[in-house]
Amino acid sequence: MAKKTRKTASGRFFEDFHVGQELRHQGSRTITSGDVSLYIALTGGAFALQSSDPFARSVGYHAAPVDDLLVFHIVFGLSVADISKNATANLGYAGCDFLSQIMVGETISARSTVTGLREVSSGQAGIVYVRTEGLNQRGQPILTYSRWVMVPKRYPESPAPDPIVPDLPDQVAPLTVPRHRINRAWDDRETGSPHRWEDYEPGERIDHIDGVTVEEAEHMMAARLYDNSARAHLDQRAMADSAFGRRLVYGGHVISMARALSRNGLANGCILSAINGGKHRNPVFGGDTIYAWTEVLERIVLDGRTDIGALRLMTRAVKNRPAGDFPCDGQDLVLELDYTVIMPRR
Amino acid sequence: MAKKTRKTASGRFFEDFHVGQELRHQGSRTITSGDVSLYIALTGGAFALQSSDPFARSVGYHAAPVDDLLVFHIVFGLSVADISKNATANLGYAGCDFLSQIMVGETISARSTVTGLREVSSGQAGIVYVRTEGLNQRGQPILTYSRWVMVPKRYPESPAPDPIVPDLPDQVAPLTVPRHRINRAWDDRETGSPHRWEDYEPGERIDHIDGVTVEEAEHMMAARLYDNSARAHLDQRAMADSAFGRRLVYGGHVISMARALSRNGLANGCILSAINGGKHRNPVFGGDTIYAWTEVLERIVLDGRTDIGALRLMTRAVKNRPAGDFPCDGQDLVLELDYTVIMPRR
Amino acid sequence: MAKKTRKTASGRFFEDFHVGQELRHQGSRTITSGDVSLYIALTGGAFALQSSDPFARSVGYHAAPVDDLLVFHIVFGLSVADISKNATANLGYAGCDFLSQIMVGETISARSTVTGLREVSSGQAGIVYVRTEGLNQRGQPILTYSRWVMVPKRYPESPAPDPIVPDLPDQVAPLTVPRHRINRAWDDRETGSPHRWEDYEPGERIDHIDGVTVEEAEHMMAARLYDNSARAHLDQRAMADSAFGRRLVYGGHVISMARALSRNGLANGCILSAINGGKHRNPVFGGDTIYAWTEVLERIVLDGRTDIGALRLMTRAVKNRPAGDFPCDGQDLVLELDYTVIMPRR
Repeated sequence: MAKKTRKTASGRFFEDFHVGQELRHQGSRTITSGDVSLYIALTGGAFALQSSDPFARSVGYHAAPVDDLLVFHIVFGLSVADISKNATANLGYAGCDFLSQIMVGETISARSTVTGLREVSSGQAGIVYVRTEGLNQRGQPILTYSRWVMVPKRYPESPAPDPIVPDLPDQVAPLTVPRHRINRAWDDRETGSPHRWEDYEPGERIDHIDGVTVEEAEHMMAARLYDNSARAHLDQRAMADSAFGRRLVYGGHVISMARALSRNGLANGCILSAINGGKHRNPVFGGDTIYAWTEVLERIVLDGRTDIGALRLMTRAVKNRPAGDFPCDGQDLVLELDYTVIMPRR
Repeated sequence: MAKKTRKTASGRFFEDFHVGQELRHQGSRTITSGDVSLYIALTGGAFALQSSDPFARSVGYHAAPVDDLLVFHIVFGLSVADISKNATANLGYAGCDFLSQIMVGETISARSTVTGLREVSSGQAGIVYVRTEGLNQRGQPILTYSRWVMVPKRYPESPAPDPIVPDLPDQVAPLTVPRHRINRAWDDRETGSPHRWEDYEPGERIDHIDGVTVEEAEHMMAARLYDNSARAHLDQRAMADSAFGRRLVYGGHVISMARALSRNGLANGCILSAINGGKHRNPVFGGDTIYAWTEVLERIVLDGRTDIGALRLMTRAVKNRPAGDFPCDGQDLVLELDYTVIMPRR
Repeated sequence: MAKKTRKTASGRFFEDFHVGQELRHQGSRTITSGDVSLYIALTGGAFALQSSDPFARSVGYHAAPVDDLLVFHIVFGLSVADISKNATANLGYAGCDFLSQIMVGETISARSTVTGLREVSSGQAGIVYVRTEGLNQRGQPILTYSRWVMVPKRYPESPAPDPIVPDLPDQVAPLTVPRHRINRAWDDRETGSPHRWEDYEPGERIDHIDGVTVEEAEHMMAARLYDNSARAHLDQRAMADSAFGRRLVYGGHVISMARALSRNGLANGCILSAINGGKHRNPVFGGDTIYAWTEVLERIVLDGRTDIGALRLMTRAVKNRPAGDFPCDGQDLVLELDYTVIMPRR
């Protein structure tokens, strides 16, 4: 008789993790101009620096760098098979440091370390904390972040591990910034915004006005582009039996949508330096329309730099309602993203 | 208390335009092979010259040029934030001259001049006429066209400006054509059509037969690929409250769909030289199926050229019904496009 | 009066074919990195060798080769206008030999020979057998396969041709394999699977576990990417009147989805050497969720090669139900694909 074998990976359950575990994720991915175009078409993320080779060269790059979030998603995608294939929720991110900008043609790989485990009160699942690092083709770190996800247990009766919750930073510091001088040639007409670092005040709130609807085909194409094979995004038949009854939009797609919307108001913030913390507050489904607003948390002077400064921002995204009243909670709130961008000074 | 600021661009209203106003549009965009592939996947626009480097080289190009309409859409997209973000309808185009063909790796920017203004009888909106110019990375014009759009007023009580309606040409002349000889090596097997310039007669009608359905995800991806942020295409929640109750397909996507369908019958017309005039007659929505037919308006001899000639064509697109009976009006008619293509002679 | 002409190709009907007929298909297509990214985003087909330039170089390639099925679809697409534009069903494939791997920048053309014809019992249609060959820019064969399709007759009363059914091989032999040594540097961490050629046993069954839902926008974008203009995939209005009442997913897209799913369990099988035979058992529609399982048919020793071996596999795909019980028939079965992959040995 034919025999059934177990060569397929069904993904880790909560029992399969232990603190200190090192995971060298499978695969590597060469970033192409096709990936960049798809990222723009799927998310609208077309900041000026990433869209124009001449503009990028005018401010000291060899060519337009790849959008930082596309790099983030590729690193994240590389980690899914090992960490979150069975995850029921991405709960949060912290300490995400973008260490260098990536160019088309570079190749990305990733590895993670399990830094914490905590069973949830129901006893049905646990929270897994990992520190993930993206590397370039020379093995140099390009991106590092912590995330924590809810992972079901294989057996409800499995004993709970000793709870270990890592200390996670509230803020990435010191910030990684481009080494070359940027502002002399910075042309605000390239970005469409006259607003530079000095123009943003802590406490200031910006409604990004525009809304954008997400379709099933779009978020699924995005997930596949990043090789993110989490069941929740791709398999409608399986998700029909879930509590949601349908596919969930990959949370990173929501982050990209919010960041794309934020271009209207923050167009000079082309360089993402850090994600200090991020939380998905409610799920997003195909057909939802996303809006976003941003609060300026802090204007950061960078040591020895008169060309650029940093802005710490909190962008909140909501679904199916405008964000002009600056909502901070409720069922409509889908994302809170605390992050830091680099902006040219005058 | 946190304060709300106005750093976001909500787009111009009718009052914000004046005749003679010059708008240097924000941003520039380097065209990549990813953009070209997406254009093919989203529209079906895969004319032979634009799809094959060896064929393009055999007829005198360095490599396959970028589809003229993709360039048009990128230029158009660059102008949306300044001109038509709030537009409720793209009413027409005239005098669109494709001045040179663009290659992958070139970078496009754009600027416009307001050439006319006219309040509509309701007093709620006005028509804005602009002349837009696309430029390459050396600042050379690559494309120029006039368009007019319906833009709402900010305040209904704002006084009407003196109406100024520019003289718009019925036809682009003289035509811009490739400088190099083309027909010696032109291989009809590359295009699949034995029909050359001499074979088309004024008055001749061609049913392009095929139909293609447009999905919401497709036209939204197209709009984002061109960085066309007009609310009407992307924001289902806002459009639910509009007269249409739903998102509108970007008119340029309909032009591209019609042009793609026209390949069946006009496959040797790979080079778009001019759009003499274009009108969107009725809106197109996700789920509509588009058909098209073409009337040959004129066969144009090009001075000093025995290798190529021009055909002036009128392509009409209809929705949700075949075009075999050559419909010229009605609720099904979505597009009238009067344009000129270059075709090899025998 | 304006006259109607017949410059459009409405595709061949059964009467338009004769055995021995040679068809040099229109067009050629230069493969770009944009095509590769779209293939990944649309199908999930991201085998390690095709995704990473450094990995590909480490095992003897100049760069990451293009996925064999993307090449297959481009060749197939080139043949549609001549062969299957009006086809109501792709019935099967045989003897598909992947002769060389294609790199980004290469250009593909195709030609076919009609090898058989057989009217079906209803007298309304017939089966057309063709042998198709894909060529590179130097005219060298890169891929060859037989397929047979159901094509309607133009007139039911047309006489039936003498039935000729070609002898089709059950298996491609000898197999085409990469000439260079592969396994010394093969890094299982790149593919995520420790399972090599020796680890697969004839009779072994592998459930690929994952499911993926296909959206209308996705399969239509795929069809257009391959320039596959078959009416059945793209024209909802026309298909509303068909027996199915809706658009059919291009069978090749189902093959790609099944192959992408098979990566979970067969990740080291990056190189597709042959499709011995393939059949579409039931149609797939937008909204269906696809699952797949594979039976190992044969472990093939390759003469003189200790670095690689071949595995003959049967992958079956089903819709809207998991494949964990290894279904071999029924209304859910959509694909049977008998093919051969190259795998590194220990």
